[in-house]
Amino acid sequence: MDYKFSDSFKNLQPSAIREIFKSLTDPTIISFAAGNPSPESFPVEELAKLAADIFEKTPSQALQYGITEGFPGLREEIAKRQKSRFGIGRDFDMTVVTSGGQQGLELCCRVLCNKDDVVLCENPSFIGALNAFRACGAKTVGIPMDEDGVNIEALEKLVKETPNVKLIYVIPTFQNPRGSSTSLEKRKAIYEIAKKNGIVVLEDNPYGELRFAGEEIPTIKSFDEDGIVVYCSSFSKILSAGMRVGFVIGHADLLQKMVVAKQCEDVHTNNFFQMLCYKYVTECDLDAHIEKIRAIYRHKCNLMLDTLDKEMPKEVKYTRPEGGLFIWCTLPDGLDSGEFAKFAISKKIAVVPGSTFNCDTKAPSDSFRINYSTPSDEQIVNGVKVLAEAVREYIASKR
Amino acid sequence: MDYKFSDSFKNLQPSAIREIFKSLTDPTIISFAAGNPSPESFPVEELAKLAADIFEKTPSQALQYGITEGFPGLREEIAKRQKSRFGIGRDFDMTVVTSGGQQGLELCCRVLCNKDDVVLCENPSFIGALNAFRACGAKTVGIPMDEDGVNIEALEKLVKETPNVKLIYVIPTFQNPRGSSTSLEKRKAIYEIAKKNGIVVLEDNPYGELRFAGEEIPTIKSFDEDGIVVYCSSFSKILSAGMRVGFVIGHADLLQKMVVAKQCEDVHTNNFFQMLCYKYVTECDLDAHIEKIRAIYRHKCNLMLDTLDKEMPKEVKYTRPEGGLFIWCTLPDGLDSGEFAKFAISKKIAVVPGSTFNCDTKAPSDSFRINYSTPSDEQIVNGVKVLAEAVREYIASKR
Repeated sequence: MDYKFSDSFKNLQPSAIREIFKSLTDPTIISFAAGNPSPESFPVEELAKLAADIFEKTPSQALQYGITEGFPGLREEIAKRQKSRFGIGRDFDMTVVTSGGQQGLELCCRVLCNKDDVVLCENPSFIGALNAFRACGAKTVGIPMDEDGVNIEALEKLVKETPNVKLIYVIPTFQNPRGSSTSLEKRKAIYEIAKKNGIVVLEDNPYGELRFAGEEIPTIKSFDEDGIVVYCSSFSKILSAGMRVGFVIGHADLLQKMVVAKQCEDVHTNNFFQMLCYKYVTECDLDAHIEKIRAIYRHKCNLMLDTLDKEMPKEVKYTRPEGGLFIWCTLPDGLDSGEFAKFAISKKIAVVPGSTFNCDTKAPSDSFRINYSTPSDEQIVNGVKVLAEAVREYIASKR
Repeated sequence: MDYKFSDSFKNLQPSAIREIFKSLTDPTIISFAAGNPSPESFPVEELAKLAADIFEKTPSQALQYGITEGFPGLREEIAKRQKSRFGIGRDFDMTVVTSGGQQGLELCCRVLCNKDDVVLCENPSFIGALNAFRACGAKTVGIPMDEDGVNIEALEKLVKETPNVKLIYVIPTFQNPRGSSTSLEKRKAIYEIAKKNGIVVLEDNPYGELRFAGEEIPTIKSFDEDGIVVYCSSFSKILSAGMRVGFVIGHADLLQKMVVAKQCEDVHTNNFFQMLCYKYVTECDLDAHIEKIRAIYRHKCNLMLDTLDKEMPKEVKYTRPEGGLFIWCTLPDGLDSGEFAKFAISKKIAVVPGSTFNCDTKAPSDSFRINYSTPSDEQIVNGVKVLAEAVREYIASKR
């Protein structure tokens, strides 16, 4: 049968990263391509104990249908922590548990965007979000980036000149793929532009808890007296990515529509793991656990940066993250990172070419993303050496 | 802020059942409104033991990101069981794990339907599916029902006269809300009509394992030599509803698009519980467990039918299910079950009015759905007595 797919899906391809992820079955390849949290960041012993507790004390509740909004105790604990930790939440706000941070992004776009409505996105940005917006029929339009976040003049111009802008999507803290953060000044400017133009800001903060250097910068949602910011985050980087438990906080009028959409997608998020998260945050020391994860990533990031400093040709530039999972490397002379990534794979080192993260998927990129949370220390050191050698060879071949 | 919602969500309301479900906090109300599996159907002890095993042996894998298609071992086991049990699966088919059966229905519509494309549905049908189709912008058009499934002449006429029909959605076995099944003859007719007209059949079979009387009827998917049937089911009614683990089987060309859509929605289904299901089906005796659930529902259904036979005014008609979770009651003289359901709540008994399940939500219905899997035996007997008395009073008040 010749299936006739819907307009939104006809041309949508699987995420390139997940395709790379799937192809990495060759154990001789060192992968800097994934974005997985370190397995050391999962508090296995505590989770095992708490899970046994749930099976013993409240199995019927944990294994039965729940309500779409999420397990009530967990929603309360999330709201409390986000308030105290990130200044998030006003009386008009509501907290909903989602199946990973991904679902919050997708639901927000789904309830707001008609076909061909526009989501303005940092360019480059998180491919999972870009594809979710495209799947909703929305157009992703890129905002050029400075070192410290989107270029504000460019954003103002885009907002003025682009019809049907419904959302501004940003990852202000330890952005994926760049690893760098948006300055406080720019966060305020983004908020004001959105407010003035009646556009919703979708703030994605999966890495906010993972700061291992520098000073905390307030979230955009913490300014939100007007109910214009939808804030998404998750437990993926601090408890478990595989459990798919995230959350979204935003004005109740908007979130109630997202609840209707979520009901259509999966009825509710895995109930057992919602209760497990609830027990973890109420019975264990989450802050101490997060401190441990930060130490792991501080070490791994420094190791990767030190090795890059030592090995990489000086003409290659890279970001110096203060948190998160990623470093963004830029080749000299506008060389194409797509071609380079293929060359790198032949040298047994995997990176993600920058074009993957572009709003315009056909636009070439001179940059690529590398990750330090997944590889072992040995793989980081050896991998960077191989990568540097590959870069050197590649540059030489182009001159 | 005055949010401008997308066309598909502007008018979409939360499922009435889930709203009833939420309002049932009054412990003096006996609820026949839910559709929850009996907590006795969850194999708690085995799941607890297997979960402890996973935490001990493969915690990093279970708590880490997985691939969108699902945990490979589980996909294989599902394919094997559906093949041997229900004759499902050809070389062109692919199995994907979904976040509950709900997600399979939603993804299928999402990748096939543009705005205003039509899904033909049994009328009445499962509200969760109807809302998922509406959320995709599709129109739900009802196919009138006979006792033994859709009216085939009506289906043929609808297919001929309705533009842009993309899907025929059916629950042939122990339908929700009617509790009755589609005859073999009609299943074959549906398949042939779909094939002749190049329409995909979406076969939903959440209750297929729950037959406690009568003879097995082949699934529509078991006829599928042409790759035109997408088959959805789940572990919700046999292991745990709250874990949200379902699956979809269909032609790989179609399912690969659904995988792209799933990636946008939740990246993948809870990995830990996918592994838990895998361990259950490979290390425990699923058939023996299902036999136990069947015995529970056989008993509960018979108890409800016996009490209905004894208590209910003879002018009220009801189905006599051979499996599943629901009985469908029809009031005499075309009385409105919406008004009756409100009256029943005032008498402390909750049922779901038939209009909830109509494709045209404004069309009245003389029928309502009652459920026997969730209430205790005592609640079934007492609840039916209260219900019968409420019906008697309501009918009398209308004469």
